[in-house]
Amino acid sequence: MAGASTSMRLRLPIACIALEVILIILFGVAVEYDHDVSGEAGHKTNTTHHDYENEFYYRYPSFQDVHVMIFIGFGFLMTFLQRYGFSSVGFNFLIAAFSLQLATLVQGFLHTIMTGGKIHVGVESMINADFCTGSVLISFGAVLGKTSPVQMLTMAVFEVILFSVNEFILLSLLNAKDAGGSMTIHTFGAYFGLMVTRVLYRPNLDKSNKKNSSVYHSDIFAMIGTLYLWMFWPSFNSAITLHGDIQHRTALNTYYSLAACTLSTYAFSALLNHEGKLDMVHIQNAALAGGVALGTAAEMMITPFGSMIVGFLAGAISVLGYRFITPFLESKLKIQDTCGVHNLHGMPGILGAIVGAITSLAATKEHYGNGLTAVFPKITSDFPASAQAGMQAISLVVTLGIALIGGIIVGFILKLPIYGAPSDSQCFEDGVYWEVPGEPEDCQELAAVKSGEESEKLN
Amino acid sequence: MAGASTSMRLRLPIACIALEVILIILFGVAVEYDHDVSGEAGHKTNTTHHDYENEFYYRYPSFQDVHVMIFIGFGFLMTFLQRYGFSSVGFNFLIAAFSLQLATLVQGFLHTIMTGGKIHVGVESMINADFCTGSVLISFGAVLGKTSPVQMLTMAVFEVILFSVNEFILLSLLNAKDAGGSMTIHTFGAYFGLMVTRVLYRPNLDKSNKKNSSVYHSDIFAMIGTLYLWMFWPSFNSAITLHGDIQHRTALNTYYSLAACTLSTYAFSALLNHEGKLDMVHIQNAALAGGVALGTAAEMMITPFGSMIVGFLAGAISVLGYRFITPFLESKLKIQDTCGVHNLHGMPGILGAIVGAITSLAATKEHYGNGLTAVFPKITSDFPASAQAGMQAISLVVTLGIALIGGIIVGFILKLPIYGAPSDSQCFEDGVYWEVPGEPEDCQELAAVKSGEESEKLN
Amino acid sequence: MAGASTSMRLRLPIACIALEVILIILFGVAVEYDHDVSGEAGHKTNTTHHDYENEFYYRYPSFQDVHVMIFIGFGFLMTFLQRYGFSSVGFNFLIAAFSLQLATLVQGFLHTIMTGGKIHVGVESMINADFCTGSVLISFGAVLGKTSPVQMLTMAVFEVILFSVNEFILLSLLNAKDAGGSMTIHTFGAYFGLMVTRVLYRPNLDKSNKKNSSVYHSDIFAMIGTLYLWMFWPSFNSAITLHGDIQHRTALNTYYSLAACTLSTYAFSALLNHEGKLDMVHIQNAALAGGVALGTAAEMMITPFGSMIVGFLAGAISVLGYRFITPFLESKLKIQDTCGVHNLHGMPGILGAIVGAITSLAATKEHYGNGLTAVFPKITSDFPASAQAGMQAISLVVTLGIALIGGIIVGFILKLPIYGAPSDSQCFEDGVYWEVPGEPEDCQELAAVKSGEESEKLN
Repeated sequence: MAGASTSMRLRLPIACIALEVILIILFGVAVEYDHDVSGEAGHKTNTTHHDYENEFYYRYPSFQDVHVMIFIGFGFLMTFLQRYGFSSVGFNFLIAAFSLQLATLVQGFLHTIMTGGKIHVGVESMINADFCTGSVLISFGAVLGKTSPVQMLTMAVFEVILFSVNEFILLSLLNAKDAGGSMTIHTFGAYFGLMVTRVLYRPNLDKSNKKNSSVYHSDIFAMIGTLYLWMFWPSFNSAITLHGDIQHRTALNTYYSLAACTLSTYAFSALLNHEGKLDMVHIQNAALAGGVALGTAAEMMITPFGSMIVGFLAGAISVLGYRFITPFLESKLKIQDTCGVHNLHGMPGILGAIVGAITSLAATKEHYGNGLTAVFPKITSDFPASAQAGMQAISLVVTLGIALIGGIIVGFILKLPIYGAPSDSQCFEDGVYWEVPGEPEDCQELAAVKSGEESEKLN
Repeated sequence: MAGASTSMRLRLPIACIALEVILIILFGVAVEYDHDVSGEAGHKTNTTHHDYENEFYYRYPSFQDVHVMIFIGFGFLMTFLQRYGFSSVGFNFLIAAFSLQLATLVQGFLHTIMTGGKIHVGVESMINADFCTGSVLISFGAVLGKTSPVQMLTMAVFEVILFSVNEFILLSLLNAKDAGGSMTIHTFGAYFGLMVTRVLYRPNLDKSNKKNSSVYHSDIFAMIGTLYLWMFWPSFNSAITLHGDIQHRTALNTYYSLAACTLSTYAFSALLNHEGKLDMVHIQNAALAGGVALGTAAEMMITPFGSMIVGFLAGAISVLGYRFITPFLESKLKIQDTCGVHNLHGMPGILGAIVGAITSLAATKEHYGNGLTAVFPKITSDFPASAQAGMQAISLVVTLGIALIGGIIVGFILKLPIYGAPSDSQCFEDGVYWEVPGEPEDCQELAAVKSGEESEKLN
Repeated sequence: MAGASTSMRLRLPIACIALEVILIILFGVAVEYDHDVSGEAGHKTNTTHHDYENEFYYRYPSFQDVHVMIFIGFGFLMTFLQRYGFSSVGFNFLIAAFSLQLATLVQGFLHTIMTGGKIHVGVESMINADFCTGSVLISFGAVLGKTSPVQMLTMAVFEVILFSVNEFILLSLLNAKDAGGSMTIHTFGAYFGLMVTRVLYRPNLDKSNKKNSSVYHSDIFAMIGTLYLWMFWPSFNSAITLHGDIQHRTALNTYYSLAACTLSTYAFSALLNHEGKLDMVHIQNAALAGGVALGTAAEMMITPFGSMIVGFLAGAISVLGYRFITPFLESKLKIQDTCGVHNLHGMPGILGAIVGAITSLAATKEHYGNGLTAVFPKITSDFPASAQAGMQAISLVVTLGIALIGGIIVGFILKLPIYGAPSDSQCFEDGVYWEVPGEPEDCQELAAVKSGEESEKLN
């Protein structure tokens, strides 16, 4: 699968520079500031617009929380591998910085496809672009350690486009609700990535390489990622909802779901181990499933009670997935899922979609009062809650369809021997693509003494 | 003290699942959204309520800062131990996720005890629950390394209840001011934890175990915790104050107190070392005492000048505590205070309570103008500033009483041989409760070569 | 250059305590709360002032992001050195906590020099003080590993004063725009620090010490610093701009500049390595140059298109600087720039100043509408855009002049043999100023076995 050479000397500069130049040209042609970025809102058209009504103050703190999740959260979550920390954090950084630019264009283009006009950018587009980037990074988690950076950039190009198309179908055509992206981000990213890694299957990965595991310190680095994702997930789910009580409620529901999820994660992690010992992989990942599983329903009147039930189930499903389903996927279906994204994003994403559809059934005046239209703008006497629930269910099917088919096609594109992919024995190893420094001096001294001894013996 | 088995195979799942199920049921029965979470405020009753007046926008950024302090701040501060990083971060995570749920219920119940009705949740309840959680984590710092996770969950159940009762007495019955929790959070958490660790005294801890210390990298991990606590303490103290100038002032005062505290910490750390070398334990902990010591007075007109004096003193006291009082507590009073919470939270908390009482004496129209009622709603011509100061002083006594007595009782409850507590030789060791991965490959190779040699020698 | 003794036993306590006492006295004499901190705005003078109009809500989230950049960002960015992590994070902490207090006084004094009256403090002064601190920490990066903490505190005293004078000349006298500090913070801090390290030149540094390099884990710690700087740079550049659309636009432009910069950094890092391997030094530093280079122009109508071009160039220049200019500076000009601040802050800062001057040329009604006065308050028919651009250019010259001359003078002050500076062989070594714990137990065991063996051999 890999070409003879893994050198990035020309491949990576060409890819990065070509992509960035294209992005810059397209931004020059097609993008302009949104009204309350350019100042038109405040200065030209509407003299009663106050500064504090600028979208910036409603959304920028949430944006920054999401931004931390994308770069620190995803980046450090993947540093658990013992010799792949540079790549985990570093390629996460590269792919994210690229994806958010492309996503701005593609999402913006689809947004203006009906109305025409230029692509408007502002804090909302920044959040939406980060969301799309999150989906790409989920897929990155599935193929982590087995791909070159150019391969990843190529995957990102296709995935950003497919993500945006799927998102457009769900939110604009089917009128589905999915503020936190149970379907658009998590389900899509996970199943897309799983198909890519399926096509890129490496039969000799296990035999040739023992670096697909953690060491003590790398697991603690990974907990930095976990905790930032966990803490800021309420901001993630609520970042793009309507202002006021809806944003407030979305954050609150997510907070309870995550708390309940954490307890079920610890419970099932201990229960499934023969000695009752906790497994860091579960804690690092499954405790987050509560955020994923509330990605659709968090803005609805699901109540803290409902949120906690969903979170509890999500944690349990996710731990069981790591224990039983991941080995099954690898041995039977030849799906090598490095970070277990199926357990953190795949199954909890589907659960979230189902919970969203069920919760939509209660979308009535009785539960929402005059706020009903704010959450479900399409619901009327002609389009009842059950119809909304149906659209939610159809949205899940559409998402799975596009993710699975898209992932297979993109997988084959990524199989071309042009990307400098690592050989099986080079997987999970930073040294292929990075200048890696030596060990701490004390260890070097030990090693030096040791080799001195050995040469002594030889003499 | 420990039962023969430390297995968490059944204990932890039973505890987590039972507690979570009870929480979920109680949330289902007793909890509902606050007005500006459900949308009632915006949509039903009051058409002039603007989105930007939603409590969410006043408090959510502060809440997220507090949240980071609880999960990253406390969690990483305790990773200084060389082989207890998984437990420090991981059990901190578990206990916090549990405590914030229980705290919501208990604090909410006491809040509605007069008025009746359901418990209302929103961003304010989230902050208050995190505050209570902070107090539990302070106690966790005192017993760190010597307790099982089930023991910790049990402690949390009792401590959350006692914390909430004490907080209710102080804030609702005695009308004390304590926005940043010098008394309710820090003094309470520290002395409660010190009593628990006193009852759980392990006479052979020092002889059998040398892991109660740091290594180079673990001290750098701990600095992540320190710095997040330090940076976000202004948000912590101001998170729950009234809006506007009071919140602004609280953050500002805390910022100056911490800055001055840092300089005195470095000064005294160098001064107390024979070679003038700085001690990481002091930097990691004492530099934070300035935030603790302003927990009561930060919202008052203490001025930057006063804040800096308090911060300077707090840093000095805290370093002196680590140098002289912690060894005394351990050798004479049999109080084994793993993280030195007496120095970071205990003494600075008492200092903060005293500073609060003294600053209250200046609670006059002259200093506060029309803002007096906002800070001290009870002060009138019949209830002068001196009466407020008296209430502050009484509050400190009440807090110490409940913490000391409560800690002793809970300590004895935790002594029961049912929790799977570690033996003395298992303390400060992740391997008891966690699947711990091996060392980095390079070290393994060294070790392998070594053992090869040894077997060679044996032959 | 170093005195015989490096002991901080008396030096550091005397310096810290003396400085803090002076600060406290000056704060007591000269500082008072700003209007919306004391509550005068809300309660006394203006009954229509709403809480949500308090400056706190516009700026505090940005302030906290800046605060994280100062303490975690700068602090961890410098932990890349293998045995200097305590000092990097710890002295960064000390110097920052000191500098922000002094900066409040000096900036505040210059601010009131025309109008008289006391120095007002609030969230704006907090941000401005953190900005000045950032400049000091840039200089700290140039001399990192080669100076004592007392030397650093001394440098900070002078640099804070010179920074504030330069800032006052630029912003108040020359009416230059520089919201994100391309000139005031980055150019000033870099060239000041480079001159200091030039005067403190150590000819034998390379021969005697091999610790001026990273190890695997220290590079991952450094990435924490990098990513926080990268993520929060939009907050940095926009923290102190006018409210509303300007703040919104500044954050947005910076976001795009950084994204483009990241791709060019990866491209040039791979291109300049013979095997096409990425260099962590480039990723950690050059990817941030896009934020520096937009420090002046980000609030202007530079558009995302323009921002991305600037970011792309900045990344390229910075990587080229690390590869070619830093070795040249060291070998030919005797400037030992530990962190390469010339590449991250120096050249990109100058680029940012030039971009700002050029962008100012388009400061017309046509581009800005009624918002023109908000961004460029001085521009009128008598003072056209070209005059503004001229002032921007003059500002760069003034900044370079003060930084270079000031740096040389302060360098000679720091050469006095009274600070306990380390000898050449003690550079980049925590053990000189810190109690450093041993290695992890496993390594100790290895070492113990080893030394046992050796003594066996001796027998």
